[in-house]
This record gives sequence, C-alpha cells and structure tokens, in this order.
Amino acid sequence: MTFHSMWAELLPIGRSSASGGYRRYAWTGADSDCRAWFKEQAEARGLTYEVDRNGNQWAWVGDPGAGDAVVTGSHLDSVPDGGAFDGPLGVVSSFAALDELRGRGVQFGKPLAIVNFGDEEGARFGLACVGSRLTAGELTVEQAHRLTDGDGISLPKAMEAAGYDPDGIGADPERLARIGAFVELHVEQGRALDLSGDRVGIASAIWPHGRWRFDFRGEANHAGTTRLVDRRDPMLSYAETVLAARREAELAGAVATFGKISVEPNGVNAIPSLVRGWLDSRAADQETLDTVVGGIEKAARAYADAHGIDLDVVRESFTPVVEFDHALRDELGRILGKDTGLNVPVLGTGAGHDAGILSGRIPTAMLFVRNPTGVSHSPAEFAAEDDCVAGVSALADVLEGLACT
Amino acid sequence: MTFHSMWAELLPIGRSSASGGYRRYAWTGADSDCRAWFKEQAEARGLTYEVDRNGNQWAWVGDPGAGDAVVTGSHLDSVPDGGAFDGPLGVVSSFAALDELRGRGVQFGKPLAIVNFGDEEGARFGLACVGSRLTAGELTVEQAHRLTDGDGISLPKAMEAAGYDPDGIGADPERLARIGAFVELHVEQGRALDLSGDRVGIASAIWPHGRWRFDFRGEANHAGTTRLVDRRDPMLSYAETVLAARREAELAGAVATFGKISVEPNGVNAIPSLVRGWLDSRAADQETLDTVVGGIEKAARAYADAHGIDLDVVRESFTPVVEFDHALRDELGRILGKDTGLNVPVLGTGAGHDAGILSGRIPTAMLFVRNPTGVSHSPAEFAAEDDCVAGVSALADVLEGLACT
Repeated sequence: MTFHSMWAELLPIGRSSASGGYRRYAWTGADSDCRAWFKEQAEARGLTYEVDRNGNQWAWVGDPGAGDAVVTGSHLDSVPDGGAFDGPLGVVSSFAALDELRGRGVQFGKPLAIVNFGDEEGARFGLACVGSRLTAGELTVEQAHRLTDGDGISLPKAMEAAGYDPDGIGADPERLARIGAFVELHVEQGRALDLSGDRVGIASAIWPHGRWRFDFRGEANHAGTTRLVDRRDPMLSYAETVLAARREAELAGAVATFGKISVEPNGVNAIPSLVRGWLDSRAADQETLDTVVGGIEKAARAYADAHGIDLDVVRESFTPVVEFDHALRDELGRILGKDTGLNVPVLGTGAGHDAGILSGRIPTAMLFVRNPTGVSHSPAEFAAEDDCVAGVSALADVLEGLACT
Repeated sequence: MTFHSMWAELLPIGRSSASGGYRRYAWTGADSDCRAWFKEQAEARGLTYEVDRNGNQWAWVGDPGAGDAVVTGSHLDSVPDGGAFDGPLGVVSSFAALDELRGRGVQFGKPLAIVNFGDEEGARFGLACVGSRLTAGELTVEQAHRLTDGDGISLPKAMEAAGYDPDGIGADPERLARIGAFVELHVEQGRALDLSGDRVGIASAIWPHGRWRFDFRGEANHAGTTRLVDRRDPMLSYAETVLAARREAELAGAVATFGKISVEPNGVNAIPSLVRGWLDSRAADQETLDTVVGGIEKAARAYADAHGIDLDVVRESFTPVVEFDHALRDELGRILGKDTGLNVPVLGTGAGHDAGILSGRIPTAMLFVRNPTGVSHSPAEFAAEDDCVAGVSALADVLEGLACT
C-alpha cells in the first residue's frame, strides 16, 4: 500500500456530504470503520496487533515486551466537520514510513510500534486525549465513568456498544515502561512552515491552554412585551465578553475564542434565562495566559454586574506548558540535519496532542508537515502530497535513527 | 368546577420538574393531555364539542350554525419552559365565565363558543399562531406542509401522530363567517396594569413585529493555532450586532432581542464557520420598526465587512400593526364601565395573539389581566387569584353584554 492508496481508502469514511467535513467521533460507526482499517493495515504487514485496556490500537514490529520501544502514530477520530489530515496524516505516515524502512532493508535494534490513540479530539465526551490521558493516569477511572455524550451515553457504555470491554480502563504504567520514545507526526495547524517555506518542522513546546465555562444567568421573559429597562438579558453580557476576549488576547499576543454556546430557552421571542459560553485560551507562557483569562473574567464580571446578571466562571480543563524532551528533540534535529536536504525549523504550537499528554511520562517529540492554508479543524485543512511524502521520509529517517542499529 | 379547581387540574400537565416551566408543545403528549381536559370540560357542561379542520377545539352553547356567534378562548400550548398563565388563563376563564353566566340565569340571544387554538406559540414548528393562521388563510396548505420540527417531523405527520386527520387543513371561511365577535382574555405580558394599579385592561393594538435571521459566515479553524489576524470569526460580528440591537432599540423606544442562536460546529476549540442569530424586534409603529431593524442590519454589515464575514439577513416572519376593532373595543369599555367598579385602561402590546391573526377577518378584542411580575414566557409569569377572578367576572360581563338579550 502506498501513502496515496492508504489515504484514498480512509478519505470516504465518516465524511459528511453536507459539509465536506469529517464526523469521526469516538466509538461511533465511522470511528469503528477507521479502526477496522488500522487493524487491516497491521495484519497486511504481518505486525503484532493489539488493543490496550483503554481501547488504543497498537501494531508491533518485534517483541512488544522487549522494552525501549520506538513508537509513532497519532489518532483517527475528528472534531465535528474536521479536515482529513488532523490525526490520520500521522497514522498513515507511520505505516508508510515503516514500508519505506523495510524497502531500505534496515535492521531494527529495538521494537517499533504504530499506535492509534482513541478519542483524541474529545468531540463526543467533551474531553480531549481520553485514550492517552487514561493510559498516562491523567484521567482517573472515576472521572472517565462520569463522561457522557450529548445523548447521555457514558464513555464505558459507548466503548461497550462499539465492542470493547470497558472494565479494564485506567492507568497503564507497564505499557508506558516499555516505550523509549514516542514521535507523533501531525499536519501543522498554523502557517509557520508556509511562511518560512519549509516542508517539515519539529515541535518545541505546546502552549499552556485551558477551557473556561462562563454561565451568564438572567431572567427569561417575553421579547415583545418586556421593556428594556425591566430586562436582565444575559446575551448582552455574553456579547460584551466575547469582544473583551478578543481585545485581551490581542493585547497579550495570545489567542482567546468563544466558539461554543448554549442558550436557554433559545426561543426567538424569549429573552434568555441562561447564556453559557465556553472560552478557549492559550498563550506562550503561563503568566501571559493568566493575564488574558483574568482580564476577560474581570470584564465579564463588570458587564454582568451592570446588567443584573449572575456570572459563574468554571475552569473545565487546563494543561500547563508542555516542553518536549530536549534530548529527543535535538536528536531529531541531528537526524534530519544529515543528508535530507531539508531545513527543519523548531516551532511552538497552540494545539494539544497525545504526545503532549505522554510527555510527562516518556520522552516524546513531534514532527509537523506544512499546511499552506494554516486552517485546521475544518475541511479547508490541507497538506500537498509532495509535503506529505517529505513528511513520511523524515519520519522514516527519524525511526531509523532511533530504532535501527 | 370552580376557576380554582380547573386551574389545579391543568397545573401538572407538561410541567418540567427541572425548570418549573411548561413544555406543552403542539401535538405532543402534554398538548394531548391539555386537549383531553378541554374536551372533558365541554362535555361536563353539555356543550357541543367539535374539532375544526385545523385541529382547533370548539365548545358551543346553542346552534353553531346560527351565525353572529360570540366566541371567547385562547390556547393551551406553551413556549419552552413557559409559565402557567399564557394561554390557559384565557381558556379556563372562558369556562368559568360561562359558569358565572349560567349562575346569573341569563338568556343567550346568540350562539356562544369557547375555543382552544392549536399551536399558538410556535415552539415546535417555529411559526406562531398556526391554528388561527390556517383558519384565516394566512398560512397556505403548502406552507404548512413545509413546517418541520427539530427532529424533521412535518406538521401534518405530527397532527396525524396525535390522532388528527391533516388532510383537511386550510382556510375555513365558513367557520369565520359564523362568528360575530371574538374576545380573547390573556395575562398581561408587561407591567402596565401593575404600574397603574388596575386588575383588568382592554387591548388597543398589537405592535408591528417580525423575526429576522442573521447568518454570519466565517471560516472554521482551530482555536489554539490560528493567529488572530488570520481569523474570520463570525462570533465577533454576532456579538457586535447584539450590542447594536440594544442601542438601536433604546434610541427608538422599541424592543430588539437576540434570544436564539445556532453555531456551527459549536466546538470549544473551533472558531465557528457559522453563527446564526435570530432578531425579534417590535415597535409602536411601522416607521420606528423599520428604523430600528435597518439600523441593526447596517451596523451588522459594517462589522461583518470589517472581519471578512459574509452576512445574510432573512426576514422570516412579519406582522403589521394590528388595530383591534374600534367599535368592539368601545363596546367592551362601555360594558366594563357600568357597575363593575373597575377602572379598565386601554393598552397596546408587543405580543402576537390568535386574536391579532383573526382581527383581519372578524371583529376581535382582548382583555388583559394584571401580571405583577411583568414577566412572560417564563415560570415567573404570574397573576394573583383575586385578579384572575376579576378577569372572569369582566369576561362574563362582556359575554353577557355581547350575547345576551
């Protein structure tokens, strides 16, 4: 299977004809189809296939228990109406890189594995990187049992419905102890490589980031008969806070986004009783992020007070800055600096990844492939096939450098 | 059955224990329970019960075909998490007023009917006053067939599922031709009676009002990795438009509300591709309303252009000013001015009603009962039992004055 033919096989799975985007949510039919594809790829190459206790898929060259394994891979699920590359590019490139290494006739001195982490995007249960978080012990079994989707189906029930046994989920230190290095290849989610004119980059760090829920509570009332002065309309405070978030992020050189909202009762002729908005904010360092989110919350409270609105702000998730392992990063730079003809810049990123979750337990690194649109989490996300092939070669070089004697 | 006992029977139907509000949506189980209650009330009083071709329920004293009938009533459905009074107060008061007239021993010179119009609130299919609009020919059969609820169920299918034959829906001029006057009693949806210290008022006019859908289209992208300068985030233009709507309404002494929103993809870490907001706006006259909505649309276009957002504005519905029949209004004033001990002010209102829909075809009038909270379309909507009883007496006086010899 060439990169091209593997890519073509995955393209139709879970694609919405309405939006042109992907809807591959964890433990749904589209996800199962992607997972079946992964298993086929593993078996077609004679790899040792296994599913770990948290539903992550593994395909091994060599003895999984030998230790000091080199692991690569990514995820196959998507955000709502996401693009084709975020996740799948890393998995497809992993199989293609293995094929390239076999073509080169190299000898592996360490076990090599390709992994597909489950539920990276968190589109269904609202928490990203569930598969790697569980494995790393960063999500407890109790917390995982409390995750439910929009229909009230719990994560264990969803895993069970997809044919997986949820009884064993939880931290998996034995598995992590077998891994010497994890390298995740990913489409770039910005335009840094496009602006610098390079095909491939190496990750330096993941910005600290978090999600905050802003609950603005006012009073439901009739939109036609309630005088403006008698209103406690939470939509006004929400709107002012959206604009404050943009201003604070601009001032600090950070990002802040209100992209999700829930309104009650959400009727055309009803002043809302509740406007719930979710803030996503990220910055290059912790202090800047604190300044941005603190500024937004302060502005929101002032607006809410002025309109008689009750405001609750809840931090729903938070990930501190992730510095990828310096030694591994330097090793990747050295490998890719030799004979590849590539200039490989080192980039920070605002996006979370399974590699970021695992970086606290094992040495991890990431490769980025150029995305000329800079767009991510959208059907407009893109990487040219030439750049994808360059990414495969770079990943093959890295795996050869790390795993071969 | 006293007013009190009828009221107590209706109270539990369709009430959400979570919100304390009502969810009596057209042709659902809660609506069927309300309709069964109406039929029981009609039969317990020996009235002639019928359901018209559009699913509206009628209960007649005397010969329905005799002509020049006096009709009263309202509706039993609710907005999402609405209050107990909007609609049911008019229906319960109608039965109670009939009981009071029978107690007085009056002789009816004309047929009298009590009506429950179907689907007044439009909570399920997005269009208000469907039952009266169909009857008046203001909603065509073709338009009615295109109405669907959030689950894609069409209005005819929903009627059929509730046990009604949808084949005959459409304009019903023969029915309207039998009616000499329609009087709807309704809880006030503002604080005018509370501020003036009166229990009951008479409607003068319904403000012109409409619904406009604002579609702000930008570009979906990753909230963590997309630089602010590279974004086309429609939430910002939406937020600015919400604030512009408030400013324009304040300037003009009108009302303007964004109470319903739909966001795609509505993910915490996704810049939206689409923010769809619905504007409800009303003013005392057409020129003012045009000024307000024109000002909001102009501001929205300026914001959208500045952020690279495509904006479509669609007027989804519009109702011109409704002046209730002056002769009938004066007649009500004369009747209630005699011996009732009440001061009965004449009030305008921003809310639409079945009485407003019918006013183009037959003489209509409305009575309002004091609502000390001024709140409407919310569980906080209220009328004191004393005021309700005063409303029943006023309605009985009006019916006696109009229908008795």
